[in-house]
Amino acid sequence: MTRDLRALLSPRAIAVVGASPDLHIFRGRTLKVMLGHRYDGRIYPVSRSHSEVQGLDAYPSVAAIPEPVDLAILIIPAEFVPDELERCAAAGVKAAMILSSGFAEAATPAGRELQARVVAIAERHGMIVCGPNAEGYVNTAASLCPTFSPAVENLYVPLVPPWRDRGHVAVVAQSGGMGFALFDRGRPRELPFSYIVTTGNEACLETFEIVEHLLDEGRTDVFLLYLETIRDPRSFERAAARALAEGKPIIVAKIGRSDPGARASLAHTGAIAGDHAAYRAAFRRHGVIEAVDIDEMVDLAAAFSIHREHLPAGNRVGIGSASGGGGGWLADLCVAAGLTVPVLDAPTRALLDQRIPSYGSSQNPVDATAQAIVQAGYGELMRLIAGSNEIDAVIMVVSARITASFERERDTLIAVAQHSDKPIFLWSYTLPSPDTARLLSQAGYPLFTNMQACARAIAAMARYRAARERRGPRATG
Amino acid sequence: MTRDLRALLSPRAIAVVGASPDLHIFRGRTLKVMLGHRYDGRIYPVSRSHSEVQGLDAYPSVAAIPEPVDLAILIIPAEFVPDELERCAAAGVKAAMILSSGFAEAATPAGRELQARVVAIAERHGMIVCGPNAEGYVNTAASLCPTFSPAVENLYVPLVPPWRDRGHVAVVAQSGGMGFALFDRGRPRELPFSYIVTTGNEACLETFEIVEHLLDEGRTDVFLLYLETIRDPRSFERAAARALAEGKPIIVAKIGRSDPGARASLAHTGAIAGDHAAYRAAFRRHGVIEAVDIDEMVDLAAAFSIHREHLPAGNRVGIGSASGGGGGWLADLCVAAGLTVPVLDAPTRALLDQRIPSYGSSQNPVDATAQAIVQAGYGELMRLIAGSNEIDAVIMVVSARITASFERERDTLIAVAQHSDKPIFLWSYTLPSPDTARLLSQAGYPLFTNMQACARAIAAMARYRAARERRGPRATG
Repeated sequence: MTRDLRALLSPRAIAVVGASPDLHIFRGRTLKVMLGHRYDGRIYPVSRSHSEVQGLDAYPSVAAIPEPVDLAILIIPAEFVPDELERCAAAGVKAAMILSSGFAEAATPAGRELQARVVAIAERHGMIVCGPNAEGYVNTAASLCPTFSPAVENLYVPLVPPWRDRGHVAVVAQSGGMGFALFDRGRPRELPFSYIVTTGNEACLETFEIVEHLLDEGRTDVFLLYLETIRDPRSFERAAARALAEGKPIIVAKIGRSDPGARASLAHTGAIAGDHAAYRAAFRRHGVIEAVDIDEMVDLAAAFSIHREHLPAGNRVGIGSASGGGGGWLADLCVAAGLTVPVLDAPTRALLDQRIPSYGSSQNPVDATAQAIVQAGYGELMRLIAGSNEIDAVIMVVSARITASFERERDTLIAVAQHSDKPIFLWSYTLPSPDTARLLSQAGYPLFTNMQACARAIAAMARYRAARERRGPRATG
Repeated sequence: MTRDLRALLSPRAIAVVGASPDLHIFRGRTLKVMLGHRYDGRIYPVSRSHSEVQGLDAYPSVAAIPEPVDLAILIIPAEFVPDELERCAAAGVKAAMILSSGFAEAATPAGRELQARVVAIAERHGMIVCGPNAEGYVNTAASLCPTFSPAVENLYVPLVPPWRDRGHVAVVAQSGGMGFALFDRGRPRELPFSYIVTTGNEACLETFEIVEHLLDEGRTDVFLLYLETIRDPRSFERAAARALAEGKPIIVAKIGRSDPGARASLAHTGAIAGDHAAYRAAFRRHGVIEAVDIDEMVDLAAAFSIHREHLPAGNRVGIGSASGGGGGWLADLCVAAGLTVPVLDAPTRALLDQRIPSYGSSQNPVDATAQAIVQAGYGELMRLIAGSNEIDAVIMVVSARITASFERERDTLIAVAQHSDKPIFLWSYTLPSPDTARLLSQAGYPLFTNMQACARAIAAMARYRAARERRGPRATG
């Protein structure tokens, strides 16, 4: 049903048409970004004016490249794109990524005409064409980054934290800026990205065909989608139903809820925003999770990436805290998010009371006090709270500034994360140090800094589990 | 009407009762934190077991200290506090900060009795007593930090950025953890804090008496309050009315909206949360701004700290963006926050169209495209948008990763900030580098990373201006 997108997203030989030695322009930057990563396929610059670009032999045309090319990256002025695409097709190139702007989004007859020619050429030759007006993509497993996004230039941080071998997150975005912003924001949260794919005007290839391809490939567990429109509702229905059946959550931001937002989408990628209530109903039907902004998307991805196999069975949260103030505040926000914070059962309270001084409280929120954190440790308190049969998920309120205190109980933290069948979340009221964030990620905990986001993530996960269960027992395995 | 709190908050001589050489316990940590800052008053450790503590001569009792003491910091077990307080009063000490826990919040007859004795002693001697169960305070102008909070230990960053000489922010918090979390979160946002005061159980001194004192003193422009309860409604009414008249916004988080939140507050500081609807009505009457979580408090403080003298005259926002996707998304969130994003007037659009390529848009959101940002600069585009008579505030969508591009137009950015009578906000879709954040702070812009927070801050500022104007023309000056 879906087309084979491997030539686009996992090519072995790539032509960069328009490659330039000038690193201040997109045509130079894209090649430089690609060469900054350890992709082990072949990269061929195509240039009319240079025989060598950034240390690589350049070719005057795609046809002159000495081996079959899977993917052509086009970064040339819009008016030259259709003819170049035709030449690529004639040379046997299977896929193209068009980074140039000035097509349907320009809202001129000339722009629309150019885009129509691109579509006709792609269809005539059965070519996979992404864009135009896209910002390229990242395939982290292949260390392949055909994009001019500055977000991918940081070479000192690996594209994926080496210890994150599960829970991979793919971004598919109709905006290059927003797609790579999700990547930029997710990296300090230790998110293991599989792909960032930006699709621009989606003249020939739309978001949900890519989602289906990534489901086929099986390396992605969570999807983050930036949508200005859904161009093929049947493709959406198919991909969304399949993702829900496989327990791979789709988190979307749908732009164009307001008149100015819809106006912006039309000008940006030629997208017709459509009626938001209809979108919302479709999302709900398929367990698709709607997020309000970038931070919430990253927060939800962090939660599902780690805990998608430990979805809360209900809405009841146990809160433990080193700060009595923080526990109460978070309880208010949990209730506002639709969760409950019930008083814990007597046996659990008795166990907690052995470890908490008299000026603390074991009720829920559990005000452990700083003294009990020092003496018993966060891990032990989380274990006790998670053991209560009154709750479905745990939030531990921590101060993740100083790494030493977490290092001391690292083994306990790992053991508690591994043995709990309920999801355990951490919220840090101080800003986490990078070392502590890494330690907690390695130990298996999603670490939140935003209070609302933590509460809302648990509520979203409980709703997602309910959506899966509505599909019937077949789907819950 | 209000008491003189200078002995508490601006003392010249301080006794630290219970000071210890052991840096792993609160009694040692508090003195160490104090000595880590350049306070130029005198600090006297009081210790029964040591004649010298952390390099300072120690005294066996407060009475043995060779000069009059303004403030005693008490960090001794709760059962010893009343007698020690009596001795302090006898020695002429004017104020005390009680960091010990185990009073009314312990919900035992013994704890309540101890707190009652503290109150009786303070009243009998006319002593200013803060706490018990507090976490101390910071007076940044005096470099004075009598607290054990780890948030104040970072000596490599000044307590206040030296270039922030206006728009000072005071935190008054009934939770030490939350009070210092606001400080910890605000520092990377370049917030100029004047005070962080934590009040714990508020047995003898409550939040709004401190607010009035800070209004008297005149060094604070924005207040961030963490409240579990309001212990003296008349004090609240007086302080809130006066702050509104002076145009000094009060931003509150009121805990205990939910049953578990109220339960937590009672256990934490003995606070009766009360009916939230009544609080909300009182807040609205006095233009007090309610915030949902720590991040929103810091974001609102950042906005008011810089722009409290340029409040938006209405709800109309002009959005400029390097990312077409980011502009549309933000427009949706502005509308959700109660703002409007109207199409700009023809003359402004004509000026913008001279600088924006055809695949961009001048309507609003203004999709400037990356090309126009490189060629015209953020500053010039902001200036043009701010010049439209269709809008009351501007949000510029930027990527604040790379400092060089902002350095290039630093002078323009400063000039635009100085000459605009409308508030200009920046939202960065990528994570800002610390250098860029500092440059933009110095240039006079509040920099947001959260989209919703940026939109909601503008809406809050417009509402605050309306609340001031409702008071009549006298108050708007």
